[in-house]
Amino acid sequence: MQQVQISTGKKREVVDITDEVIAALPKTGGGVVTMFVQHTTAAITTADLDPGTDLDLLDFLDSLVPNKNWRHPHNPAHAPDHLLASLIGASVSVPYQDGQLLLGTWQRIILVEFDGPRTRNVCIVPFATNS
Amino acid sequence: MQQVQISTGKKREVVDITDEVIAALPKTGGGVVTMFVQHTTAAITTADLDPGTDLDLLDFLDSLVPNKNWRHPHNPAHAPDHLLASLIGASVSVPYQDGQLLLGTWQRIILVEFDGPRTRNVCIVPFATNS
Amino acid sequence: MQQVQISTGKKREVVDITDEVIAALPKTGGGVVTMFVQHTTAAITTADLDPGTDLDLLDFLDSLVPNKNWRHPHNPAHAPDHLLASLIGASVSVPYQDGQLLLGTWQRIILVEFDGPRTRNVCIVPFATNS
Repeated sequence: MQQVQISTGKKREVVDITDEVIAALPKTGGGVVTMFVQHTTAAITTADLDPGTDLDLLDFLDSLVPNKNWRHPHNPAHAPDHLLASLIGASVSVPYQDGQLLLGTWQRIILVEFDGPRTRNVCIVPFATNS
Repeated sequence: MQQVQISTGKKREVVDITDEVIAALPKTGGGVVTMFVQHTTAAITTADLDPGTDLDLLDFLDSLVPNKNWRHPHNPAHAPDHLLASLIGASVSVPYQDGQLLLGTWQRIILVEFDGPRTRNVCIVPFATNS
Repeated sequence: MQQVQISTGKKREVVDITDEVIAALPKTGGGVVTMFVQHTTAAITTADLDPGTDLDLLDFLDSLVPNKNWRHPHNPAHAPDHLLASLIGASVSVPYQDGQLLLGTWQRIILVEFDGPRTRNVCIVPFATNS
């Protein structure tokens, strides 16, 4: 298991973490690697990343949250960050073989930051089925 | 593998199942534990739980479903329960070490009930990478 | 690990892939099987499938995406397909035992096609905890 730190630079941001995941893979053998973000205002999923598609995703997610008086006790303005993180989810599992992720051609692993800038901890855990 | 029963008390409810997951972990060694809910009107994800944030999440999810005549054959009013369960998803995978989940400080594992009160089956499957 | 091809017949479609997953399971032993779709305009989740519930799910997902000028460089009309795929997610993990998935009574594993008709690659990776 490896823990990596991902630094984000904006309040909301899509960060491509594919290269960090590949660096944590064993060079031989295959299996499944699980990524997990240890936070409640960030999420992990996969995406097509082209110029502007990161902002499309953030706009889309923002559009899902209605404008309302949330109950969140410390800071109600903070509620949408938590809600979107729970909706997308904190983990994704991807197959790998010989040090490479078995992603689609345009498929990347992304961390979605909802309350940056911050340093985010991501656990990367490969499990081998064969060697 | 362990199967636990989670009792819910309301039509819609967020239930913190973190302690049930921890109880199913091996006391030594580390790896990833997968939780899976064996139902189509309940889901599993992670969340920040503070007073009222459970209701914020339920309100948010309700707001996503438009008011329309669903095709669901047995009970169209039941359709949103299924739709939200499919959207959030039935499984989450979290790293653990020596009997503890490697969650963030405020991060909890939650079962989201969409059609309670019911008894829900959750499978908890830890996989060790080291011991 | 096994890779299966799933052929879809429409622009948007819900395809039940439960039988393909079961066919890839070892006949003895138990563990968790991870399914991963290697594309950015398709997703995998679980669902209740009854006549019409597939169309309910597609209508629901469509309703989530606002009508707007997306930045997606090649084809902005294509953006919603990517956005919904990232929202639902590319992987799901389900426990199994002795060649059977430990699903709920009505629970099925589905591939959600957002940009068909196409042939989709799905990786199916079972991990045994016992034998």
